[in-house]
Amino acid sequence: MDKKFRGIFAALTTPFVNSQIAVEKFRENIEKFNQTGLAGYVVMGSTGEAPFVDDEESEILVKEARKSASKDKAIIAGTARESAEWTIKFTNRLAEAGAQAALVRPPSYYKGRMNYEALRAYYLEVADRAKIPVILYNIPQNTQIWLPLELVVELAKHENIIGLKESGGSIAFLGELIKKVPADFLYFTGSGSILYSALELGASGAILALANVAPELSVKLYELFMAGKKEEAKELQYKLIPLNRALTETYGIAAVKYALDLRGYYGGPCRSPLLPLEAGARAEIDNYLQALELLN
Amino acid sequence: MDKKFRGIFAALTTPFVNSQIAVEKFRENIEKFNQTGLAGYVVMGSTGEAPFVDDEESEILVKEARKSASKDKAIIAGTARESAEWTIKFTNRLAEAGAQAALVRPPSYYKGRMNYEALRAYYLEVADRAKIPVILYNIPQNTQIWLPLELVVELAKHENIIGLKESGGSIAFLGELIKKVPADFLYFTGSGSILYSALELGASGAILALANVAPELSVKLYELFMAGKKEEAKELQYKLIPLNRALTETYGIAAVKYALDLRGYYGGPCRSPLLPLEAGARAEIDNYLQALELLN
Amino acid sequence: MDKKFRGIFAALTTPFVNSQIAVEKFRENIEKFNQTGLAGYVVMGSTGEAPFVDDEESEILVKEARKSASKDKAIIAGTARESAEWTIKFTNRLAEAGAQAALVRPPSYYKGRMNYEALRAYYLEVADRAKIPVILYNIPQNTQIWLPLELVVELAKHENIIGLKESGGSIAFLGELIKKVPADFLYFTGSGSILYSALELGASGAILALANVAPELSVKLYELFMAGKKEEAKELQYKLIPLNRALTETYGIAAVKYALDLRGYYGGPCRSPLLPLEAGARAEIDNYLQALELLN
Amino acid sequence: MDKKFRGIFAALTTPFVNSQIAVEKFRENIEKFNQTGLAGYVVMGSTGEAPFVDDEESEILVKEARKSASKDKAIIAGTARESAEWTIKFTNRLAEAGAQAALVRPPSYYKGRMNYEALRAYYLEVADRAKIPVILYNIPQNTQIWLPLELVVELAKHENIIGLKESGGSIAFLGELIKKVPADFLYFTGSGSILYSALELGASGAILALANVAPELSVKLYELFMAGKKEEAKELQYKLIPLNRALTETYGIAAVKYALDLRGYYGGPCRSPLLPLEAGARAEIDNYLQALELLN
Repeated sequence: MDKKFRGIFAALTTPFVNSQIAVEKFRENIEKFNQTGLAGYVVMGSTGEAPFVDDEESEILVKEARKSASKDKAIIAGTARESAEWTIKFTNRLAEAGAQAALVRPPSYYKGRMNYEALRAYYLEVADRAKIPVILYNIPQNTQIWLPLELVVELAKHENIIGLKESGGSIAFLGELIKKVPADFLYFTGSGSILYSALELGASGAILALANVAPELSVKLYELFMAGKKEEAKELQYKLIPLNRALTETYGIAAVKYALDLRGYYGGPCRSPLLPLEAGARAEIDNYLQALELLN
Repeated sequence: MDKKFRGIFAALTTPFVNSQIAVEKFRENIEKFNQTGLAGYVVMGSTGEAPFVDDEESEILVKEARKSASKDKAIIAGTARESAEWTIKFTNRLAEAGAQAALVRPPSYYKGRMNYEALRAYYLEVADRAKIPVILYNIPQNTQIWLPLELVVELAKHENIIGLKESGGSIAFLGELIKKVPADFLYFTGSGSILYSALELGASGAILALANVAPELSVKLYELFMAGKKEEAKELQYKLIPLNRALTETYGIAAVKYALDLRGYYGGPCRSPLLPLEAGARAEIDNYLQALELLN
Repeated sequence: MDKKFRGIFAALTTPFVNSQIAVEKFRENIEKFNQTGLAGYVVMGSTGEAPFVDDEESEILVKEARKSASKDKAIIAGTARESAEWTIKFTNRLAEAGAQAALVRPPSYYKGRMNYEALRAYYLEVADRAKIPVILYNIPQNTQIWLPLELVVELAKHENIIGLKESGGSIAFLGELIKKVPADFLYFTGSGSILYSALELGASGAILALANVAPELSVKLYELFMAGKKEEAKELQYKLIPLNRALTETYGIAAVKYALDLRGYYGGPCRSPLLPLEAGARAEIDNYLQALELLN
Repeated sequence: MDKKFRGIFAALTTPFVNSQIAVEKFRENIEKFNQTGLAGYVVMGSTGEAPFVDDEESEILVKEARKSASKDKAIIAGTARESAEWTIKFTNRLAEAGAQAALVRPPSYYKGRMNYEALRAYYLEVADRAKIPVILYNIPQNTQIWLPLELVVELAKHENIIGLKESGGSIAFLGELIKKVPADFLYFTGSGSILYSALELGASGAILALANVAPELSVKLYELFMAGKKEEAKELQYKLIPLNRALTETYGIAAVKYALDLRGYYGGPCRSPLLPLEAGARAEIDNYLQALELLN
């Protein structure tokens, strides 16, 4: 597989001002991220409030990302809608706008019907008709669906399905899958808390909310690992877990944006219905950032 | 509350031919439904594969519904997107297209954050800025969110929130809510299996998948009840439950569409990822329709 | 079916003093309940903290219940353990102690394996070997298992399975089941919030936590209904729902016991891990009891 | 912490003949396991059908385990019941019978009430009154409860709480916890699929269903790891995952017992309601065992 998709990707937040997308802020953030060792950016991922942003706004943001990102940074876009038809149309629109790969979570509104066959047919149709490569996306905490391991193995044979992002946090799943898919099938962990263990078992990289707030440390962990400095990588991993848990499981996107503001990026507010962070949570984030020496 | 929203509404299916919306078929279905005693139609509800249909397609369908529906039929549109911003924009677009009320399920992708306050702020903003009245929508089987009773009571005070569709099937919820909201607050049950009991406790009507397949009997149950013929209404209710369960819980939209085809409407295929009905399920639906004498 | 199992049953709480079963208190409560129109008592139900009480203690309590209960009151015991073997042994021990029927919830620890066949085999074996009649028990909020309707229909053919207690609150389930089981199959609703609607659809009675705290009103609702005074029964139902919700869904057994204390019965503390009720909850219960004129 | 609890423990199955505990078979199994490098045995764990076995039977089995186990093997007993009172009584009975530590999963029948405070009070009371050390047990797939990390940290300060068995499979939880508890706090992973990664992050050992069927390989993985042969340990881990998944997630205890029979131990049937393994599953287990060269 193309090397451009290996390494650490930031799952970018989407900046809003008065609930409208703030393209300028988005560009400024990317320009700062360009200075880091990130492999690229995911636009319209779960951290990007993707379900809150309509097709046209998404197109504008992907175009901007492509324009602002330095040449060595890959652009992956979250392109899932709930039907194959809409997902394909939207995927190809974002491909046109500059996305180099499409991250596609399973449809989940009618979760009672999303059996093996339904998911299989859906992904095959999307992969057949998408103009860019497809990355599967397992995120059961949001979809209540766990992509069956056997299905991923089967879909990995499709030439336009190049990888999986796994945000369920299962090392067991990774350990079994990695031996059953082609060697160049990409495996991104979606959890900044298991990055070390995932790399140990053969993950090709990660797509992380954490990589917004701590891009340098996320990249450093990856680079230490790749350089064979496993103990150092592991020690860094231990240090990152508390912050990562707060940013994802405990508080979510509002916390990522708050931390971005503290770090000199533009975070700003989420769109409704996501509420601003409360004082206690803010103090907790402050502490984690300080402990990691991420504040000046 | 305006009388136009009382009675039985069909939650219309969305016809597709080759995965594209089939506006002609949609019109023909509506023209047939115009001959029944239905109070109106819900376009882009859960039965309408709403999450599968993009904004532009939705607008076309609402326009067509408004044009084809006889004057005495009210048009309610499902207008939920995941953010307040997109929901409001979409709601007002469909209002412009002819929708007379908006049915709005709660955002659910970030379900871990959808606490009382988040849902409250979301609905208040939507209600403030929507150009048509808002109907709340509780459908936990799809959203994993149960709108708190106290929240519905609070939101019912907003002048632009006129009712609730409750598809969780809880008679207890209805029995408590109905005494805590204004007398003209609309209460639609979303379950064709509890229609009788819901009317008994004060529901103002229903929005039903069943009313596609059996509009005459759905309306008959309602009219028997309103005419004080409770025992007859109840006997009809017992007869409708097995079909209704098959159409909703057991098989879902593909079954509704299959039954529509049998009954001389256009059902047709669902969009992917919803699969066609298998033979066993088809036979079961056949039997239920026959038992109700709904086939010639 | 024997008439002794028709009507309203209290799902008795289990009194503890210093975490030990308080047999005296238990007898005194029953003697007071004997003055009411309750059809009988369920000992070792979910409200009775059944999983907290060992086999020997359970036997003592059933014996005491049989001894203290007036002759016209039937005694049903919760006798479920997780295996058929233990359940049968325990059931027959409690039968010996005086239980006239056994209420048996499905095993649920290994819920991933509890498919139709496993549940079917389990209940058939229990029914075959139990020396008293078996009542099935659907309580998904505690077991995460919903007994399939078709399974209940099948099991209802067994001569030693005489009924179902349904605590999931589904009127749709009742409405379909009642037409598919023998006329004398007992149907107890387990929810004091839907008693009216359940009776309307043909339930034979109820087993209620509410009937500890408000035995007179629970019985009154039943008697009004049986006397054809449906509107009065319904009005009473509306009034009981808020209290019932607080006692079950919102606060649980600690609230039932607190309310018992207020009403002159012995409630007392729960066994750990159930915590005492907090001040806000106590005030809420006070208000509900006052509104129903249940405090002197 | 005492070294006797470090290493690999088999979560023993409970042998039944005609649904009765088969003490002889149990002894024979243990005598065979004594020949392996297992650190000890867990009697009455989830793999031991603990919820199916009453207190007296449990006592007999623990006594037999203590008698049959070689001196160097530690005996841990699953001693959880649903109330603190019963758990303590049962724990001390099994302590008397020879258990050296108690594995205690959280009460879960009233899961809606099992908040932080309730679980905290429960475990503190059990730990205070238990005559043997307590090991916490996180097994959300069976209990629907995830022990909060902060709670485990707090409980780890209690002198009679010596460790945690974590069967939820979360490496992130381990990675955070291990830095927040005393260095001698035991951490057993409960998943044979993540053993390698867990050891890498500092787990002290494992309690495994897999260690019934493949005790030598489970121990070998551990010993390779401890000897610093990490790559070999990891390669063995990859090989064990498919079998382990089949034995736990996919088929459960019936599969463990079937595999035991194939390997010359006594597996035998489960108690009802657990059903025997079907032909397809048996063939799958055969294949996995052959692939690992565990069949002669």
